[in-house]
Amino acid sequence: MAAKTLTTLQDLLTLELKDLYSAEQQILKALPEMIKAATSKKLQAALKEHLTVTEHHVERLQQACDEIGVSPKGHKCAAMEGLLKEGEEIVKQKGKAADSVLDAAIISAAQRVEHYEIAGYGTAATFAKLLGFETAGSLLGETLEEEKNADVSLTELAESEINAEAVEAEA
Amino acid sequence: MAAKTLTTLQDLLTLELKDLYSAEQQILKALPEMIKAATSKKLQAALKEHLTVTEHHVERLQQACDEIGVSPKGHKCAAMEGLLKEGEEIVKQKGKAADSVLDAAIISAAQRVEHYEIAGYGTAATFAKLLGFETAGSLLGETLEEEKNADVSLTELAESEINAEAVEAEA
Repeated sequence: MAAKTLTTLQDLLTLELKDLYSAEQQILKALPEMIKAATSKKLQAALKEHLTVTEHHVERLQQACDEIGVSPKGHKCAAMEGLLKEGEEIVKQKGKAADSVLDAAIISAAQRVEHYEIAGYGTAATFAKLLGFETAGSLLGETLEEEKNADVSLTELAESEINAEAVEAEA
Repeated sequence: MAAKTLTTLQDLLTLELKDLYSAEQQILKALPEMIKAATSKKLQAALKEHLTVTEHHVERLQQACDEIGVSPKGHKCAAMEGLLKEGEEIVKQKGKAADSVLDAAIISAAQRVEHYEIAGYGTAATFAKLLGFETAGSLLGETLEEEKNADVSLTELAESEINAEAVEAEA
C-alpha cells in the first residue's frame, strides 16, 4: 500500500483494494516461474491450483471495486514487488540447491506472499463490511478464507514430506 | 529473502535468519516514525510495546545464529523494504487523513509487517527444530508467538474503537 489521498475510511478501503489488485497481478506473473522451478509434483500442483484461484481473486477485487464505484487500477504494491524479488532469487537457485531444499525455499517464499494477502484481505473485508458494502465484504471474506487455506496446505505439504527430504539432503 | 548460496537446509535456515535480522533492524528504524504519526494513545502504546519486543527479537536472532555458527548480518530483506515504504507513505498522510483513518491505516501497515514475520519465524523455527538446533528452535518459536499476539492485539484495538471512529469520520 502507498497512499495518495486518504481522507476517509472509504479512501483507505479503495487504497487497500488497489493494493491487493496490484499484488494479485504481480503474483499472476510470478507464479508460472515458481511452478517451473518447483521439483515436487505435489508442490507444482498446489501452486497451479493457486494460480487458478488467484484469477478468481482478481475478478472479485474488480467486483468489489464496481460496488464501491472505483477502479482497481493505478496503484503499484511495493511490498509485493519486494516479496516477489525474493521469490525470483529463490527460483535462480534451481540446479544449485538440492531439489527438496529448493522446494522448501519456494514454500517459504510463497507463504510470505500468502501472509501479505491474509493481512490485506482481512483488513479490506472488515472495512467493506463496516462501510455497508455487503457484496464486497462477502467476496473479500471468501478470498481471505482461500488465502488462509492455501497457507495451511503449504505447511502440510512441507511437514508431510518436503522438509524431511530437505533434512536428508543435509547428509 | 534472497539467496546467494543455498545448497542445504542449513543454508536455507541461515538465509531465513539473516532475512529476519534485516527485517527487524528495518522495523526498529521505522517504528518511531509510526509511533509519532499515530494519534490514538492506545495505538501509540501498542507500537511502543512492540518496539521493546522487537529489540528482544533481534537478540534472539543473534543467539540463534550463535548456536548455528553464522553471522546474522550481510543480507538485506527486500520485502521489508517494500512493506516499510508503504508504511512511510501512510505516515505522510498525517494532517491530511482524519485521525482515526490515519490510525486505521497505520494498523493495516503494521499488520502486514506482523504477517511477514509470522511467515518468516514459522518457517525458521521449523527448520531449526528439524536440524536439531534446540535453542534456536525454542527462541524462534517464542518470537513467533509474540508476533502472533501482536497481530491479534492490533485487530482487537481496531475492532474495539479505531474502526468505529474511522467510520464516523466518513460522515
